[in-house]
Amino acid sequence: MGKAAISIPKGTRDFLPEEMQRRKHIFNTIEGVYQKYGFLPIETPAMEQMTTLTGKYGDEGDKLLFRILNSGDFLSKADPALLEAKDARGLAPQIAEKGLRYDLTVPFARFVVQHRNELTFPFRRYQIQPVWRADRPQKGRYREFYQCDADIIGSDSLLNEAELIQMIDEVFKKLGIGVHIKLNNRKILAGIAEYLGKPEKLNDLTMALDKMDKVGTEGVVTELMARGFLKEEVARLLPLLAVDGSNAEKIDKLGAFLKESTLGTQGVEELSLVFRYLEGSIPKEVLQADFHLARGLDYYTGTIMEVVATDFEMGSLCGGGRYDDLTGVFGFPGLSGVGMSFGADRIYDVMMGLNLFSTQIRTASRLMFVNFGGEEEMESLRWLRQIREEGIASEIYPDQAKVKKQMAYANALHIARVAFMGEEERAQGLVKLKEMESGEERLLALPEIITLLKQ
Amino acid sequence: MGKAAISIPKGTRDFLPEEMQRRKHIFNTIEGVYQKYGFLPIETPAMEQMTTLTGKYGDEGDKLLFRILNSGDFLSKADPALLEAKDARGLAPQIAEKGLRYDLTVPFARFVVQHRNELTFPFRRYQIQPVWRADRPQKGRYREFYQCDADIIGSDSLLNEAELIQMIDEVFKKLGIGVHIKLNNRKILAGIAEYLGKPEKLNDLTMALDKMDKVGTEGVVTELMARGFLKEEVARLLPLLAVDGSNAEKIDKLGAFLKESTLGTQGVEELSLVFRYLEGSIPKEVLQADFHLARGLDYYTGTIMEVVATDFEMGSLCGGGRYDDLTGVFGFPGLSGVGMSFGADRIYDVMMGLNLFSTQIRTASRLMFVNFGGEEEMESLRWLRQIREEGIASEIYPDQAKVKKQMAYANALHIARVAFMGEEERAQGLVKLKEMESGEERLLALPEIITLLKQ
Repeated sequence: MGKAAISIPKGTRDFLPEEMQRRKHIFNTIEGVYQKYGFLPIETPAMEQMTTLTGKYGDEGDKLLFRILNSGDFLSKADPALLEAKDARGLAPQIAEKGLRYDLTVPFARFVVQHRNELTFPFRRYQIQPVWRADRPQKGRYREFYQCDADIIGSDSLLNEAELIQMIDEVFKKLGIGVHIKLNNRKILAGIAEYLGKPEKLNDLTMALDKMDKVGTEGVVTELMARGFLKEEVARLLPLLAVDGSNAEKIDKLGAFLKESTLGTQGVEELSLVFRYLEGSIPKEVLQADFHLARGLDYYTGTIMEVVATDFEMGSLCGGGRYDDLTGVFGFPGLSGVGMSFGADRIYDVMMGLNLFSTQIRTASRLMFVNFGGEEEMESLRWLRQIREEGIASEIYPDQAKVKKQMAYANALHIARVAFMGEEERAQGLVKLKEMESGEERLLALPEIITLLKQ
Repeated sequence: MGKAAISIPKGTRDFLPEEMQRRKHIFNTIEGVYQKYGFLPIETPAMEQMTTLTGKYGDEGDKLLFRILNSGDFLSKADPALLEAKDARGLAPQIAEKGLRYDLTVPFARFVVQHRNELTFPFRRYQIQPVWRADRPQKGRYREFYQCDADIIGSDSLLNEAELIQMIDEVFKKLGIGVHIKLNNRKILAGIAEYLGKPEKLNDLTMALDKMDKVGTEGVVTELMARGFLKEEVARLLPLLAVDGSNAEKIDKLGAFLKESTLGTQGVEELSLVFRYLEGSIPKEVLQADFHLARGLDYYTGTIMEVVATDFEMGSLCGGGRYDDLTGVFGFPGLSGVGMSFGADRIYDVMMGLNLFSTQIRTASRLMFVNFGGEEEMESLRWLRQIREEGIASEIYPDQAKVKKQMAYANALHIARVAFMGEEERAQGLVKLKEMESGEERLLALPEIITLLKQ
């Protein structure tokens, strides 16, 4: 057994303790809010049948699925003609019948259908697990990353949208990130297409509007013309995109434009009700009606939402929306719902960029005993046991090494306080406590240490 | 896109909310203890290079590795002769260069070598992540399961062993499972082999002793004879296995037997010191010196430990030990350490069997508002917001459905209390609170509800 190469697959990451603690802070915050709103946890396996995964993410998505080679003699069932032709694409389904999940939505849909008789609807679930995509790795894009999803399925009530938005607001407030939560409704976009007399061009309209943030109004106009909208149609659109004022004013103005469109009016009413549910609970400057928010093409059918940081340049930190049919592809149509997903990696980058991780989030020891060996070590252990019994994370350096080495360890781990139980201290029934930042030293009794550390 | 088959790969599992909540209780308990003892979290990717994984788990283990098919045209690099010969074993390394981790130990060793200049030693890490094995699925054996490891590397001090044992004791105390923690030392086993005059037959001795729990002393005798031990050698062994009394007495007696063996004496002294470190902190009936504890063959070189439940028939719930060389295989020899791993699935089964999961561990809502729509719904939302602000998990039924349906939902989710904000209650500024178990109903103001739920 020779030396093995030391590397991990490209696009994957090791997480060291400090990064883990910061990541845990994000995940724990999200999970805490999910739980406070009564959402229930589920988990699904990393591997799914390839038949569950393929055809759900488009042709491009299918290519990004990681396949698991069948165990044992995986070639026994392979078509010899395909083998001879070296037809990788044709062979893959024969030699690799399982794959790694690509997102949490398709496994969730499969889960709901498979367990529909064990679930209580409306079903409010959250799921925080890694997903895998064979994407070309680049800055901020990984082949393994966590998704943090929450969905409510089996309820058409717009109260669900309002709850998700409250949860979003609460998560970012707790993390200390200033955000705008942008809201729109796919029915409004359909109404706008109708208003322009081009209901059949909804997709083109949506794709052009989706670029507003990147290319501005002029760019959108160019894009619309390229997609076959006439000059006068674009001219009719501009006032709709320019509606301003408070959210209520914007909704009123747009409602007036779309009053002839049944779908458009329905969208405006839905959006309006979501705002009404949220009155007094979300600051006005956070929540914004945004009629060019599009969020991709398929899937969503009602409310759509997206979150961006106000003080840091970064894509969407969280997004979601309402869908009419989550589970139809698995033979159980008509189950609607609304959901959202936090992008933990982007949130991490924003928090690093804005220096938002306090040292308080560290889960490491808050006190370390220096190890002097012998009876002093034994006495330190007795103290340590009582300090830990109070739930205080703490440790003793395991070896009777040079004090300098032990202090360097405490320093490297950012342990704020170090306790010295030397011969003299032991005789007095005290320890010398050193504050690592100020260098201040005091002689303290056990109850005093516990009181201090519990503050 | 037709209907897809609804199933998950064999040996994998979906976890529904109630099972998830119970599992979370186990993981959170273990993680809480790890953190209290100053252990630091890390994570490694699900995929490792196959070169990292192969050759570490024996030939049988290699067969159980899940391989990931290379992306794109995975046949382009394949040897045509192997293709033609349908040589699956020969082709696998060419078409699947990545694999899923099989345990947390080998990825941890790879991690330590790769990041050795970023880590502070002694390094105390914990890691709680799933692993994958293409084992034949059977009751209690899965192809995806979590491991919960803690290791201290870069320290020879036996204090580390003592800390791990304290952590084990604390975890099982917190979970309410009565256990025996069995301790031995591989050097004692080597000493016994020397004492019998057969140091070269240590492996045979170990493998025979390992069966003591299953086959008893007589079975071990038969096994030893089959493995080439002479009758008189077995006769010399029996008194060693029969040493009894307190742990201190057992260690004294065994020490007398092994006094001529340097390695055996060292093992006895090490075991003795571990017990000394633990004096007064672990109940005597929990911690047991057990000289026929063997824990497999390779890898461990010093202390070994294993945990079994006292009131439930089940294999080992937790095990671990000291190793001399974690990272030599990755070109960085001589890094010793000691570690342990909890078997979460077995712990789960024991807790289910003994009915140890209290309803208290549920993370779900503790209060549900019935939804009456209109102004009552709006007022319910205002109350709900303030209740949640106190950190109390709670929800409102999202639709204005029949009360009977809403109550059935609360019942199915084991929500203990339901709040009715009807027209009358709203007029009085109160809600009617129903205790689901007793059926008792009371009219309460908001602060009273909050006080009640915070109890």
